[in-house]
Amino acid sequence: MPPSHPFDTSYLRDGDDEDKLREECGIFGVIGVVDAANFVALGLHALQHRGQEAGGIVSHDAQQGFQSARRFGYVRDNFTSQKVMETLPGPLAIGHVRYSTTGSKGQTAIRDVQPFFGEFAMGGAAIAHNGNITNANSLRRELIERGSIFQSSSDSECIIHLMARSLQRTIPERMEDALRRVEGAFSVVAMTRTKLIGVRDPLGVRPLVLGRVGDGWTLSSETCALDIIGAEFIREIAPGEMVVITDKGVESHFPFRPQKPRFCIFEHVYFSRPDSILGGRSVYETREAIGRELAKEAPVEADLVCPVPDSGTPAAIGYSLQSGIPYAMGIIRNQYMGRTFIEPTEQIRNMGVRLKLNVNRALIQGKRVILVDDSVVRGTTSRKIKEMILDAGAAEVHFRIASPPTAWPCFYGVDTPQREKLLAATMSEEEMREHLQVDSLRFISLDGLYRAVGEAKGRNSKQPQYCDACFSGEYPVEPADQIESGFEMKAAE
Amino acid sequence: MPPSHPFDTSYLRDGDDEDKLREECGIFGVIGVVDAANFVALGLHALQHRGQEAGGIVSHDAQQGFQSARRFGYVRDNFTSQKVMETLPGPLAIGHVRYSTTGSKGQTAIRDVQPFFGEFAMGGAAIAHNGNITNANSLRRELIERGSIFQSSSDSECIIHLMARSLQRTIPERMEDALRRVEGAFSVVAMTRTKLIGVRDPLGVRPLVLGRVGDGWTLSSETCALDIIGAEFIREIAPGEMVVITDKGVESHFPFRPQKPRFCIFEHVYFSRPDSILGGRSVYETREAIGRELAKEAPVEADLVCPVPDSGTPAAIGYSLQSGIPYAMGIIRNQYMGRTFIEPTEQIRNMGVRLKLNVNRALIQGKRVILVDDSVVRGTTSRKIKEMILDAGAAEVHFRIASPPTAWPCFYGVDTPQREKLLAATMSEEEMREHLQVDSLRFISLDGLYRAVGEAKGRNSKQPQYCDACFSGEYPVEPADQIESGFEMKAAE
Amino acid sequence: MPPSHPFDTSYLRDGDDEDKLREECGIFGVIGVVDAANFVALGLHALQHRGQEAGGIVSHDAQQGFQSARRFGYVRDNFTSQKVMETLPGPLAIGHVRYSTTGSKGQTAIRDVQPFFGEFAMGGAAIAHNGNITNANSLRRELIERGSIFQSSSDSECIIHLMARSLQRTIPERMEDALRRVEGAFSVVAMTRTKLIGVRDPLGVRPLVLGRVGDGWTLSSETCALDIIGAEFIREIAPGEMVVITDKGVESHFPFRPQKPRFCIFEHVYFSRPDSILGGRSVYETREAIGRELAKEAPVEADLVCPVPDSGTPAAIGYSLQSGIPYAMGIIRNQYMGRTFIEPTEQIRNMGVRLKLNVNRALIQGKRVILVDDSVVRGTTSRKIKEMILDAGAAEVHFRIASPPTAWPCFYGVDTPQREKLLAATMSEEEMREHLQVDSLRFISLDGLYRAVGEAKGRNSKQPQYCDACFSGEYPVEPADQIESGFEMKAAE
Amino acid sequence: MPPSHPFDTSYLRDGDDEDKLREECGIFGVIGVVDAANFVALGLHALQHRGQEAGGIVSHDAQQGFQSARRFGYVRDNFTSQKVMETLPGPLAIGHVRYSTTGSKGQTAIRDVQPFFGEFAMGGAAIAHNGNITNANSLRRELIERGSIFQSSSDSECIIHLMARSLQRTIPERMEDALRRVEGAFSVVAMTRTKLIGVRDPLGVRPLVLGRVGDGWTLSSETCALDIIGAEFIREIAPGEMVVITDKGVESHFPFRPQKPRFCIFEHVYFSRPDSILGGRSVYETREAIGRELAKEAPVEADLVCPVPDSGTPAAIGYSLQSGIPYAMGIIRNQYMGRTFIEPTEQIRNMGVRLKLNVNRALIQGKRVILVDDSVVRGTTSRKIKEMILDAGAAEVHFRIASPPTAWPCFYGVDTPQREKLLAATMSEEEMREHLQVDSLRFISLDGLYRAVGEAKGRNSKQPQYCDACFSGEYPVEPADQIESGFEMKAAE
Repeated sequence: MPPSHPFDTSYLRDGDDEDKLREECGIFGVIGVVDAANFVALGLHALQHRGQEAGGIVSHDAQQGFQSARRFGYVRDNFTSQKVMETLPGPLAIGHVRYSTTGSKGQTAIRDVQPFFGEFAMGGAAIAHNGNITNANSLRRELIERGSIFQSSSDSECIIHLMARSLQRTIPERMEDALRRVEGAFSVVAMTRTKLIGVRDPLGVRPLVLGRVGDGWTLSSETCALDIIGAEFIREIAPGEMVVITDKGVESHFPFRPQKPRFCIFEHVYFSRPDSILGGRSVYETREAIGRELAKEAPVEADLVCPVPDSGTPAAIGYSLQSGIPYAMGIIRNQYMGRTFIEPTEQIRNMGVRLKLNVNRALIQGKRVILVDDSVVRGTTSRKIKEMILDAGAAEVHFRIASPPTAWPCFYGVDTPQREKLLAATMSEEEMREHLQVDSLRFISLDGLYRAVGEAKGRNSKQPQYCDACFSGEYPVEPADQIESGFEMKAAE
Repeated sequence: MPPSHPFDTSYLRDGDDEDKLREECGIFGVIGVVDAANFVALGLHALQHRGQEAGGIVSHDAQQGFQSARRFGYVRDNFTSQKVMETLPGPLAIGHVRYSTTGSKGQTAIRDVQPFFGEFAMGGAAIAHNGNITNANSLRRELIERGSIFQSSSDSECIIHLMARSLQRTIPERMEDALRRVEGAFSVVAMTRTKLIGVRDPLGVRPLVLGRVGDGWTLSSETCALDIIGAEFIREIAPGEMVVITDKGVESHFPFRPQKPRFCIFEHVYFSRPDSILGGRSVYETREAIGRELAKEAPVEADLVCPVPDSGTPAAIGYSLQSGIPYAMGIIRNQYMGRTFIEPTEQIRNMGVRLKLNVNRALIQGKRVILVDDSVVRGTTSRKIKEMILDAGAAEVHFRIASPPTAWPCFYGVDTPQREKLLAATMSEEEMREHLQVDSLRFISLDGLYRAVGEAKGRNSKQPQYCDACFSGEYPVEPADQIESGFEMKAAE
Repeated sequence: MPPSHPFDTSYLRDGDDEDKLREECGIFGVIGVVDAANFVALGLHALQHRGQEAGGIVSHDAQQGFQSARRFGYVRDNFTSQKVMETLPGPLAIGHVRYSTTGSKGQTAIRDVQPFFGEFAMGGAAIAHNGNITNANSLRRELIERGSIFQSSSDSECIIHLMARSLQRTIPERMEDALRRVEGAFSVVAMTRTKLIGVRDPLGVRPLVLGRVGDGWTLSSETCALDIIGAEFIREIAPGEMVVITDKGVESHFPFRPQKPRFCIFEHVYFSRPDSILGGRSVYETREAIGRELAKEAPVEADLVCPVPDSGTPAAIGYSLQSGIPYAMGIIRNQYMGRTFIEPTEQIRNMGVRLKLNVNRALIQGKRVILVDDSVVRGTTSRKIKEMILDAGAAEVHFRIASPPTAWPCFYGVDTPQREKLLAATMSEEEMREHLQVDSLRFISLDGLYRAVGEAKGRNSKQPQYCDACFSGEYPVEPADQIESGFEMKAAE
Repeated sequence: MPPSHPFDTSYLRDGDDEDKLREECGIFGVIGVVDAANFVALGLHALQHRGQEAGGIVSHDAQQGFQSARRFGYVRDNFTSQKVMETLPGPLAIGHVRYSTTGSKGQTAIRDVQPFFGEFAMGGAAIAHNGNITNANSLRRELIERGSIFQSSSDSECIIHLMARSLQRTIPERMEDALRRVEGAFSVVAMTRTKLIGVRDPLGVRPLVLGRVGDGWTLSSETCALDIIGAEFIREIAPGEMVVITDKGVESHFPFRPQKPRFCIFEHVYFSRPDSILGGRSVYETREAIGRELAKEAPVEADLVCPVPDSGTPAAIGYSLQSGIPYAMGIIRNQYMGRTFIEPTEQIRNMGVRLKLNVNRALIQGKRVILVDDSVVRGTTSRKIKEMILDAGAAEVHFRIASPPTAWPCFYGVDTPQREKLLAATMSEEEMREHLQVDSLRFISLDGLYRAVGEAKGRNSKQPQYCDACFSGEYPVEPADQIESGFEMKAAE
């Protein structure tokens, strides 16, 4: 084994590891409070883990009409100053945080930052979504043929143009009209001058929850963002439901053909924050349960259970509690890590220094260590971590992964590598163990994961209770644009 | 009890809680490598927890002489770009991170940022220190009388002016001469055109370690900063030792009258990073041991042991391991918290929202919770956290504190409130419990703390092995400037 | 008369005096050179006097397609760095400088900065214009009804949407189709992937010239911008002409119904730069001729002829040469005046200091002074200048104005105050003299102005040779949007 | 002759042509007004032509003590905002604008920006100067030997350190003590907590004037800065005079041995603003008189007299008035030229475009042109301008220069090239004509210049009335540091 230290190249990235699947968006909206944009800024801050590249807020005020601000960077850096926030007055506002999926940040691409706004004959509307429209390419072609001018490369803009051309009279009706043309997995928040609107796609793949804040209402991707503004969690928006909220209250519509729900199981594993509530249970507890399940499925003799920080922590605690092997922080994360080290000097880059993580050397030395991580995507980070641990003198390294092998890309609003880059797409578990050169490597089974999220009987293979396409390759909505671009679906078995 | 939620005012600060004692400085130096400033930038990044307000680097290069850059803000934001780093060439560099102790950040105060530089008849020298000179005021008055012009309000500048007026010939000799006039607790790194110099005060209150990096050498406040540049940890600089490092190697001097060492015990409790090594053991392990000791001294029946993140984590793990009560993350920290929310809009400020911490509501509900924190200073944060936990429906709240009551200010380079602001200065343990309105509150004993750091027999009250003035009020160096300003020492018993 | 000094409020503005009519745009395009955007940046810099609030450039490159950059501020500050310019590659580029007519500068209004870009089914096109579309409001209403989504409040966007809905096949044909629906005064530069297009409205109100640069071609609002890139001035684009330039050369089309030209006479008086060529003569010489004509029409005995800097200079020289009265710089302009003093502290604002202009006190004292200015709009600046001159001890002050009284607003791309704010709309020449409290005040006659621009017989009142609506109230194109908003045309005589 | 157009390299610089001598500083102080720093900001803005690289202001307020701000860039960009100015409270302030003489702008060199501040035993003082200390190097060496720590490379700091070591009791006495050790040409403004102090060197080489503003007083390099704050011009400070101004009034001291004054004659030619008053006459009038004198000394037949803008303008007007040849603006300056184009892209740099100046081509063609410039230093700009004029088709080009040949460097606070770079140091007038390839070239004689500034009998060669070392090589103060560095004085004749 070649010596990895001190010049291996790793860990130059932020907390949002490039070797993770990444949720692409968080959405938030508020109606019926003074200066709603302040609430939206807080909500988006709490949802920052769902998108760190950029954020936007649109507000509406009776005097000043629609106002918007869209910026690259963190919510905390852009949407906190009096100067910015006073440009966003009014009792109604929506917002969005996102990853840049196409890469280049810059002046021109700010036009891709949501929410999008359109002026219709009957007034303006703004819209933001989390998820992906799987037939966006063909919709866009059709709209350009008819004379629409696109300003961005974002899927959301298709919805706005479809609404502009709808023959319906009101904006909610036009939105229903538009959404019926759209395929994919999406949660939407939208606003008119007087209405806050929320929609979940018919399968309910992406989350959306309703809260009560003072005399007003709020919509959010996750409940953790309700906590930050002191809102009460009321309920999840149902799959296929559209809620239209005014000062009269919440109206519920069901514009789509009903289908069996298929919520994204990866929200439980990694995307959602541990203090959010999904299905009546804290995500933290679910992850601890995954760790317990993993300890039952894949026990091993060892001295320490260490999480890969920070996302592996709850499962590592669960593994420790189930197995009785002491939990310890063998890897320490530098809390002052940030974005700017991603462009270091040539020398720093070449040193490949451990800017983000450091091994607790004195603790690890001579120990048999179980490392618990949430997932393995490309395997690059797992490899570096294993090397760090061995350099520090660990006697054995055992990887335990709190999700099944990630073998298929997600086309529903998650940034995944192409299939051939996924380690599990080309290797068996044993091949991966050998590739990573660790003493053992075990993933939780798909059934084990279903049990941990509360399905006592495991996965119903005829009619799966969740969307688990990234593990199973079974896509509940056909990824039309991707197939057009050459993606090959799993052969029927 | 008044309802605290949703509009209590709290948690607007960064990870560096205002309700903590704060180490005021980290220092780092490197000699004998290509572009030493890059190494110093990395070292300071690893020491960022010791000072976040500002940082500075001085380098020396045969062609370009001494160069310096001093900036407000994080190392990662200021000392990473090619543009800045290429202004700091050469094989020799030192650096410093600091807190602003006087408050106002701004253009003029940049002159207070170390390292300081002085041009002497025999060449230039730069100097940076961690700690505090307890007779700085009288030294400054004397020097101004003699015609010295001060450019800053920093203690370090006294050392430079004393050196400028020394009758000795070489810079190391002048530094010895100067340091003999200085009282207090300090670790120093300094550089001339060809030498890297390190000094620890005679009691060794503040830390300083020596490392080997490639063919060169490095000095650092903590070992975690050696890891980041791939340096090997050689040894701690001894109390009262001055090392002078050139391309010939490391020379050792002992300019001071020998004394019994009194290392700062709070470095074990809070200041140092958990992955640093102090006294041959990882700080993490010491803190876990404190938690175990605490569990023995102050057991209680409960359902969960939860750390106050992040500094209470190792002690909470120790408490859990010793007591058998499950460890859980009852409080979640927002990893995207940063500095800028410290100036939010009026409304956000008034909402007093929980920007930094959130309770894992679903987990806590109905549970008896032990909260483990590292220390209680003013008690303001402890109070907020207790309220958050009770709001979330906890059945009982028990505080366990991994240090004895902090009853005395530190005058050796730590930012502490005035004595009357320290909760433990005016209240007994039971009064504090009542003040915080919790079911129980227990601090580790001073003897228990000594045991946890490895002194099996506890504290030697005749000749304490550590500086523990913040707990005991016994100051190993008389704080002359403070006494002049009216501070009253503890009455002899 | 109240003392005006030292605390009168004046001259806080930039060189672009608020008491002037302001041309709203400059346009420039280049095809057939390496890195055309660099040429466009230089051309726009030379046209900066036509628009200082913002600028934009769009380029096209075979590999990278269309690229754009739009910024607030001066060309020299935004379009010079390697970093920006390398994002605008390719042999074909167009650009635009503009005033903000609606006022607020900020993040959102950047979308109003030209050139505008649209993706059509047959490829993209960018467009920028100088002038005003007088039926823009009704066109916009019609387009929104049909489902177009507007992203800006700019007239240019109407042209893009009309093009998107055209039934024609090629982009030049679609542009002809669109422009036939458009009323007003406009010069346009546009580009496709391979073509540079220039259009002047049927009356030729706004200027546009053609130049040859190396093997390529260039279009510009004025000839001074040809000089800066070393281009040869070929000819003016004819009123109503559309030129389509490719690597094969220049093709000429005449899509509009032919009309008698009505070029803007104020371009001669103030808008164009003195080193530009209009009608075969330098603008400088025309302005000197206006000064000579004025000296003939309105002689007066005096000691000095002083220009109001800088725009009154050529006419003052002409007046001096014709009258024999010595020319002198009685008023000095601070060349370091810039934009930022427009937001001074309260105290500086209240002092109303003479940041921009200062009187040459020692020179003026006791003298009879003729002040030559290009125009009087609101009269506010004229009043301040008169007071400065009298404070400095001048014996007499005689104003001579190088244009007729400005009594009507311009609706063809010039920023004019509402009619009631124009001094000449409500006062006779003698009333104005009394209002300004000067010894004499004379404007050049409309016939005198026509003679100075080369019409030996003066103005043909049946069929005026120029657009002189701001003086005469005779609008060659009906200002439909303005009439809809309540503007009252001059009654027929 | 090679064709120069369109790709000659020139004119990339700001108004402050690199081919000019440059005054290095302007100083300004105010006492006895509310918020004196606002007045200082305005005064420095009016003195911006004397130094554009950086500026600084120090103020004193009873509550807040001394405050300072020092910035790179224009006054208008740094000292206008409420945010900056409110950090500079109090009734007493001084300020400084400067050129960077050593070149590199950057974080570290901000310490070279004046005013300098020192804390003495009896209180603080700040000081700023215009000019040069000719024995600064030896003073600095002596002070360092004695233990002073220098923070900058500025001469002013010597004065502060000399004051710190003075045995005198009061600050004014210490300043006298310090200034008696100093050689050179300097005007100084300084302040203590209660006093505004002004000093001119014994020869009075550099200017300094006294003004009355409301109930307070002001000191300024030039009278134009009195006008901007509405101050009354009282008198020039006399050579060798020190004024100490308090709320009791102005006290006058004469600390130096009396000498015959030698005011800098180049202030009349170029440095001072045309609206300032020197010797009771406006600088504008003196320059016009220089032009008249030049027309008498060096007449030529021609069609037009054109200034090289902007500094040649008054002399060109004088030449035209004396000769009767019409004055015209043959060269137009782009008023939007600024600093940032000094770092253009490679391509723009190579195009060498005429960013700053453009020829009025249609006016010049076929004409015999007299170009009037204020001085010739290296001759590089003169050469470019001649080429521009010939390219535009001029029939003949005659240069007339409003100063004698500049053959010697200035060591009294003016930025001049080394002697060998001065065209007149190595060439006769005829050789220069040939070098510049113009039809004729004539400089005003030294006697003619003396006549124009009011010395009817010309220069008294035994005891010259002015410092004219740059023309004559006769240095009134020995440039000791320069001689030490190898400069050779003119041989005695």
